[in-house]
Amino acid sequence: MIIDRLYEEVEKKGNVCVGLDTSMDYIPREWIEEFKEVDEIIFRFNKRIIDATYDIVSIYKLQIAYYESYGLEGLKAYSRTLKYIREKGSLSIGDIKRGDIADTADKYARGHFRGDFETDFITLNPYMGYDSISPYLEYMKDGSKGIFVLLRTSNPGAKDIEYLKSDDKEIYYHIGDKLKDMGMDFIGKYGYSLIGSVVGGTHDEEAEIIRERYKNMFFLIPGYGAQGGKADNIKKYLIDGNGGIVNSSRGIIKYYTNFKDGVERFDEYTRQAVIDMRRDIGYEK
Amino acid sequence: MIIDRLYEEVEKKGNVCVGLDTSMDYIPREWIEEFKEVDEIIFRFNKRIIDATYDIVSIYKLQIAYYESYGLEGLKAYSRTLKYIREKGSLSIGDIKRGDIADTADKYARGHFRGDFETDFITLNPYMGYDSISPYLEYMKDGSKGIFVLLRTSNPGAKDIEYLKSDDKEIYYHIGDKLKDMGMDFIGKYGYSLIGSVVGGTHDEEAEIIRERYKNMFFLIPGYGAQGGKADNIKKYLIDGNGGIVNSSRGIIKYYTNFKDGVERFDEYTRQAVIDMRRDIGYEK
Repeated sequence: MIIDRLYEEVEKKGNVCVGLDTSMDYIPREWIEEFKEVDEIIFRFNKRIIDATYDIVSIYKLQIAYYESYGLEGLKAYSRTLKYIREKGSLSIGDIKRGDIADTADKYARGHFRGDFETDFITLNPYMGYDSISPYLEYMKDGSKGIFVLLRTSNPGAKDIEYLKSDDKEIYYHIGDKLKDMGMDFIGKYGYSLIGSVVGGTHDEEAEIIRERYKNMFFLIPGYGAQGGKADNIKKYLIDGNGGIVNSSRGIIKYYTNFKDGVERFDEYTRQAVIDMRRDIGYEK
Repeated sequence: MIIDRLYEEVEKKGNVCVGLDTSMDYIPREWIEEFKEVDEIIFRFNKRIIDATYDIVSIYKLQIAYYESYGLEGLKAYSRTLKYIREKGSLSIGDIKRGDIADTADKYARGHFRGDFETDFITLNPYMGYDSISPYLEYMKDGSKGIFVLLRTSNPGAKDIEYLKSDDKEIYYHIGDKLKDMGMDFIGKYGYSLIGSVVGGTHDEEAEIIRERYKNMFFLIPGYGAQGGKADNIKKYLIDGNGGIVNSSRGIIKYYTNFKDGVERFDEYTRQAVIDMRRDIGYEK
């Protein structure tokens, strides 16, 4: 099962998930001039990061909004990057946060679990209810695909709706409790389900409670670094150093911009950013 | 302002919003064989519908999931269809239901208010909070773009989260109240704001209350027809026959399949489906 593979990747390589949220602003001017076409420029930049880090990174996450912002060319780069990650034997998450009614959800599933945009995991938004989640389960029966559903996100606005209490229980607990149950039919050999969730690393209140309550859930943890998530808080969402992946985007893919010789030694600096982060969040091998 | 244009389109042409949720399964076999490439097949089908109906339809809505399901080719058809609608002088909604943190939301705004996927209105998912909505407002200051935010959707799962009560008030009212306030800075000459909302036509409990409570909101009303929304219920969401658009997808774009000579008389039948629906929901001119 794909969640078992993710578990094993984390055991071998640590918890770092590199967010390939690639903006043209992040790419060295020299490389932009070299390649000219947007899809080639973005793909080459991503490839460079992947080549420099794939042996120390458990998974890559692509925020599709960055690619959509460049239209068809951007989505071509999205597609090529996902294919390249697969060729390297690595795993990927399409951070698409889709959420829609049943027929439409099935179309999104086809779009992101098959064809040009095929990826191993996708993120989903549960606002419209559980019939907006269940269509994806059809594609998960053979164990080849997984989902991460938004529970408690890393942004300040999380408080607006996710934190509202109903029957003395926050909305994110309502959703989490339901997903935990849905996940019982999709448990892998290490005890984690194909239905994971997104839990922001910027909030640490109740971290132990959430980890304890959702033992069968793998967590995708955004918010480390740029958004202010601290390593000590984030570690609370892990079990024996596994059961979660921690995303960093700008902190890694823009790390080279901190150095005068950043462009010449791009691979080295990018790799160092991953190693530093990995150590910070508790990797000890 | 674009919301004024929509109001005027409704005055002239009625409340029908045609959902171009185009699946290859809906397209006559003869036309598929004629054009071969997916993007050309889908675009030609959409064009045929637009040509047959643009003088009796206030706006077209494209559910992007259908296009994503065909990968890059599908999105090319999405882009071409949006451009064609603009060329015809008609309005469009990109039904994308995106929702993400600030930086990412800005990327989605660029992706769907500019460039290949430019459209007049987009739909948004509010689950992550109001900082996932506010980045779009920057693009709305000149009045050229608008949004429809999910409040109470048309699917059975709407009950799972949207209907939960917090402080004795359903989640959709929490969101609606906030959006109403946010909309005060974006009111057009007919009293409607650029911040509209999605209110499913399948639920009619409280329809009058919702209409009364959110006087400044234009409603995008899905669920008519295939999903079971009845005309009498839907009318309750309108004010003097305006202030809302009613979406139908399969009921219109597949209507021709009900007839033996459906393919030969495709334009005529498709047009008839719009005229029938328009009358059903109260158009009297």
